[in-house]
Amino acid sequence: MHTYTARRRVEFADTDLGGICHFSRFVVFMETAEHLFFEQIGSSVHVEVDGKPVGWPRVSLQVDYKRPARYADLLDIEVRILRKGSKSLTFGHRVLRDGEELASGTMTSVCCVLEEGAVRSIPIPAAIADRIEQAPA
Amino acid sequence: MHTYTARRRVEFADTDLGGICHFSRFVVFMETAEHLFFEQIGSSVHVEVDGKPVGWPRVSLQVDYKRPARYADLLDIEVRILRKGSKSLTFGHRVLRDGEELASGTMTSVCCVLEEGAVRSIPIPAAIADRIEQAPA
Amino acid sequence: MHTYTARRRVEFADTDLGGICHFSRFVVFMETAEHLFFEQIGSSVHVEVDGKPVGWPRVSLQVDYKRPARYADLLDIEVRILRKGSKSLTFGHRVLRDGEELASGTMTSVCCVLEEGAVRSIPIPAAIADRIEQAPA
Amino acid sequence: MHTYTARRRVEFADTDLGGICHFSRFVVFMETAEHLFFEQIGSSVHVEVDGKPVGWPRVSLQVDYKRPARYADLLDIEVRILRKGSKSLTFGHRVLRDGEELASGTMTSVCCVLEEGAVRSIPIPAAIADRIEQAPA
Repeated sequence: MHTYTARRRVEFADTDLGGICHFSRFVVFMETAEHLFFEQIGSSVHVEVDGKPVGWPRVSLQVDYKRPARYADLLDIEVRILRKGSKSLTFGHRVLRDGEELASGTMTSVCCVLEEGAVRSIPIPAAIADRIEQAPA
Repeated sequence: MHTYTARRRVEFADTDLGGICHFSRFVVFMETAEHLFFEQIGSSVHVEVDGKPVGWPRVSLQVDYKRPARYADLLDIEVRILRKGSKSLTFGHRVLRDGEELASGTMTSVCCVLEEGAVRSIPIPAAIADRIEQAPA
Repeated sequence: MHTYTARRRVEFADTDLGGICHFSRFVVFMETAEHLFFEQIGSSVHVEVDGKPVGWPRVSLQVDYKRPARYADLLDIEVRILRKGSKSLTFGHRVLRDGEELASGTMTSVCCVLEEGAVRSIPIPAAIADRIEQAPA
Repeated sequence: MHTYTARRRVEFADTDLGGICHFSRFVVFMETAEHLFFEQIGSSVHVEVDGKPVGWPRVSLQVDYKRPARYADLLDIEVRILRKGSKSLTFGHRVLRDGEELASGTMTSVCCVLEEGAVRSIPIPAAIADRIEQAPA
């Protein structure tokens, strides 16, 4: 499966008093890369099915941190689909700086209809599933 | 090993347009519970050794999300040490609402001296290691 | 008008590489204190009117920063209503540490119905306006 | 004084349950635009003078919000210097989407040496002050 790459500067507000990018921000960068993936295949992370909003709540997350990122670093966040289930997607991520890997991880999300404050899993809508299948390898 | 519990309200700024607490915030809540642990044992996440600041950069992170948290939910974040290595600590976390588990996870950190922008791992200082050993079971 | 006080520890993720609490976090602390105010008077920042969600988008914000807050500082965030218009509320805020003022500010919000992605200002619903009037002085 | 423009997508994590970009994030976007300004003139927000780190803590902040920003909106954040004092800088900001102004604001920062956890204001170092003076009008 093709790898998509998002680019991101580490902002001042991303850092902590340890002088490095706070580790929780990597997770946000990875999410933004996933959303870029949805856009790149002509979809969106935020669609409606039968008039109801569809979202992708997380079910699991795993990150290995190898090297810290610092203020103003320019990061490349690579994302690709590791597994496409009937209701879920697992993305694999790598965070790089000048080609050096700073972190890697995986995040699994489940396709859900959001109704009246409740979250109910559904099969990935065909329109989205087809676009994922057709994404260039 | 004893379990320590931090309490936390989900704030408006913690939520996203899906109407639930953003998943990256769970990781911050877990971190804050770890810091509570350090305080409870009479230490701090932010100490100096030989005049140099000591910190605990993350090396890995893993979270399973079971149920969403919502605005104004009162969360209990349980934390306990799963493994104490010579240079690293692995914490186990559970996020609960009214006793119901919303998420669980583990985070491993390495004890490091922060020098001139570099990060160098060191054995956990005896003062901290002893307090961890003596923490009530 | 009575002053309500929220309490808050500065978390590690609130800090930046300057070693202090990032200034944008003060604004979040102030917001959380406002939400406490709504709860204290028996309302909520997140209600429905005629089946539609009502929110309080910001129209203006002003903060004076006097002293930095640091990691683990215990902050008291005072909030009171400075002005109650027909559609808007202006809150006044003070952020204190051990009685010493670190920052002060004002924030004005307009009562709005959120419809289909649009935001439309409305008079403050009577149920909320009455509770504000009756809040202890 | 020349206006510098930073570009930024509203990320999912920037939004709140009201379905719009959280107002505190505008302040972060404005800060990032300021930092771009420092880079554009060949300086940095994070320099050392006589071996000590120099930073720019905020002394005041004022924002007017006119229209909400939504997930995935592409924002232009304009920044220019409104006033250059001997120790302080006041920036003026506008946040635009497709040329439409969503918000405007001003932020004043004071040049400080950060020593041993203390913050002490200093005259803007000549190297920085000169670059500001020479920035294209």
